[in-house]
Amino acid sequence: MTAMELFASLQEYQEALGQRAELPQGFQVSTTAFSFFPKEMPAKKAYPMNLSLIVLDQLTESFGAVFTRNSFPGVPVIIGKKRLQEQRIKGVLINNKISNVCAPEGMKDAGHILTALGAETGLKAENFFCASTGVIGWKLPAEEIIDKIPELVSDLKHSSLFPLAQAIMTTDAYPKIRIERLGEGKIVGIAKGAGMIEPNMATLLVFLLTDIRIERAGLQKALNWATNLSFNRISIDGDQSTSDMALIFSSGIFPLSNKLKFREALLSVCQKLAEDIVRNGEGVNHVVKVQVKNAHAQKIAERIAKAVSNSNLIKTALFGNDPNVGRIICAVGDYLGNSNIRIKQNLLSVSLGKVPIFSSGSFCLDAEKEKLLVKYLTDSSFNNAKGYPPHDKTVDLIIDMGTGKKEATVVGADLSYDYVKENSSYRS
Amino acid sequence: MTAMELFASLQEYQEALGQRAELPQGFQVSTTAFSFFPKEMPAKKAYPMNLSLIVLDQLTESFGAVFTRNSFPGVPVIIGKKRLQEQRIKGVLINNKISNVCAPEGMKDAGHILTALGAETGLKAENFFCASTGVIGWKLPAEEIIDKIPELVSDLKHSSLFPLAQAIMTTDAYPKIRIERLGEGKIVGIAKGAGMIEPNMATLLVFLLTDIRIERAGLQKALNWATNLSFNRISIDGDQSTSDMALIFSSGIFPLSNKLKFREALLSVCQKLAEDIVRNGEGVNHVVKVQVKNAHAQKIAERIAKAVSNSNLIKTALFGNDPNVGRIICAVGDYLGNSNIRIKQNLLSVSLGKVPIFSSGSFCLDAEKEKLLVKYLTDSSFNNAKGYPPHDKTVDLIIDMGTGKKEATVVGADLSYDYVKENSSYRS
Repeated sequence: MTAMELFASLQEYQEALGQRAELPQGFQVSTTAFSFFPKEMPAKKAYPMNLSLIVLDQLTESFGAVFTRNSFPGVPVIIGKKRLQEQRIKGVLINNKISNVCAPEGMKDAGHILTALGAETGLKAENFFCASTGVIGWKLPAEEIIDKIPELVSDLKHSSLFPLAQAIMTTDAYPKIRIERLGEGKIVGIAKGAGMIEPNMATLLVFLLTDIRIERAGLQKALNWATNLSFNRISIDGDQSTSDMALIFSSGIFPLSNKLKFREALLSVCQKLAEDIVRNGEGVNHVVKVQVKNAHAQKIAERIAKAVSNSNLIKTALFGNDPNVGRIICAVGDYLGNSNIRIKQNLLSVSLGKVPIFSSGSFCLDAEKEKLLVKYLTDSSFNNAKGYPPHDKTVDLIIDMGTGKKEATVVGADLSYDYVKENSSYRS
Repeated sequence: MTAMELFASLQEYQEALGQRAELPQGFQVSTTAFSFFPKEMPAKKAYPMNLSLIVLDQLTESFGAVFTRNSFPGVPVIIGKKRLQEQRIKGVLINNKISNVCAPEGMKDAGHILTALGAETGLKAENFFCASTGVIGWKLPAEEIIDKIPELVSDLKHSSLFPLAQAIMTTDAYPKIRIERLGEGKIVGIAKGAGMIEPNMATLLVFLLTDIRIERAGLQKALNWATNLSFNRISIDGDQSTSDMALIFSSGIFPLSNKLKFREALLSVCQKLAEDIVRNGEGVNHVVKVQVKNAHAQKIAERIAKAVSNSNLIKTALFGNDPNVGRIICAVGDYLGNSNIRIKQNLLSVSLGKVPIFSSGSFCLDAEKEKLLVKYLTDSSFNNAKGYPPHDKTVDLIIDMGTGKKEATVVGADLSYDYVKENSSYRS
């Protein structure tokens, strides 16, 4: 039974999350908010910013990270990569609203902030990661952030992760927390991400905390593996951001009984967070699972799944509950033709919601199927554009290439008026 | 002075087009319309279809074609490629509403239709191209089309191309005709294309007619060259369709005085049609010219220009007149990072509407520039969502890589509510 079936409303769900979102042992968190005036904007309008801090009770040697592949990464990504050379880490400082990407003196600003945080905690700047999400290009309000650090440090508590999951949001419709228990310990993950989502960690901030003991190399390896099968298999708009990262920390309190089970639990947390991210993406009305089966190469399966997930024409048709299935074949053919990959058209078969729409080289459509498909899409839609989705249905699209044994699934979303609305005035 | 400056309204423009859109010598055209009931749809609703015919007075040996690279091309593309082996061609039969792609017995249907056309004109099916645009996957109403052929043939006239430019439209906002005169002769082009537009001939039908004499190989070469610099440099939604083609026919009446000038005139017709297609694309509110300069490779310049043109986040920001310029750097970095291309960030500079926004590795933004950019985007917007655009302004984005001497320009569009509206119920 999923959370979505268990709770009648967003309100009820969030309250329950708040109670259940207990930290793994050995961690403390705090969060605060303030307002500032970005120097890049003419208006006298104050913008809100949330600051959040996650720390371990003790410095840990067991941590890992993955970062965006974008060539113009934000300062937190540049710093994060350096931190992987450090021996011990204390935690991470997180802000929303501004992503600190390519802003003048962005590196200097982040340095001052982390130095202040180090001083306040009796440690060094190098013991902290930082993470930022929001507008690209603007300068961080460094002084205002530094002013807030004493409060943030003194408020640290062994408490719920819920306020933090809320504080890291930008345009996310609801906070995202997932937990897996393993023996006495657990893995808890929170994520931020709504638009600008594509494989390779785009516009995601993911923080994974565990009190299970696992050495650094094993932790990093597990994170890489889980990320590839979760956050790298979702796509909202095909854009990969400059800022994004997944961090994992272990407080090492409980022994690791089974490495395989740990990896599986981590994958489960990551996959559920990944689907949560799509499900509450900007203006999402349908969650779409595109499964490419029986391809002759893994890369091809992945790329076709992504090409279909990212086609604006398919995405808009889904939004309108319009089974314009021709666009699916078009997107597959577009990818293949422009990649110089030849396949036999009559090996291809495609189904939507288990209804066969294409087989043996041609469409197999009729008036009865049209009715079925319209109903299927309508039933899979979220009627409330905002807030907690009323169900956890997906639109299942299966593309069977018939040329091999490789497969890949990508979770994507439709393209709605609300997506346009949200993204046409994001900064305001 | 452009047509858009010459005419006060769409009405006035269209009347003028009708008078000016004279055929080159040696051609005849006709068009007709009828209704049918697609067997794939449950409703008792009749759908309209337009049929159009372009013929040469005499069979010609001088013709050429380019086709979509989509792996699942429509029947007209498959037939068209075969026609390039024929010695002499009479013309082309065009329908809108259904694209005849991967439909059961689609090849047989097209065969029957062209055989009927051959019989009616005293020629063979092989003397005709066919072209179809519209819903993918549906079956052509072959019998209804065949019934209309006698009327279509008997109505052929040496008259205006304007009704034909109208008849080939699907969701296009207005008909597109461009003319270049060269000595006594001319090149006239009409085009259809609104959504599903990307380089490599995606969802375009282009018909180019000339009465200037040029041998087949030279004509084909000129067409390939002009297509690459026009229709392959526009992008509305990054989707390449299954159906699209550009055909060129010469009636050979006037001598060719200068091959270079012919190529340039052809390029001019194609580039103007290409920009027309973007400008009247589904729900387009801004036309964007992305120019990538000083790249170290041609392919990279083209791909960056397309990556930026196709970013939904940039497209939605443009729609909202929101100079969210961080997304531009993000899209460039996304392409570079995920293509494993390393460049020095501090060589990059970017300007929007001549306002520098990025140089020496960081953004250079302030409140004054923000005001300027908002005004620039607002001024460049079409206020009327539908109909004839009130101006021919473009949003000019220049990305200077600083790493070489190659450049590419791609013409794209923003992403609006109307795009979503149009494409979420296209078939109805």
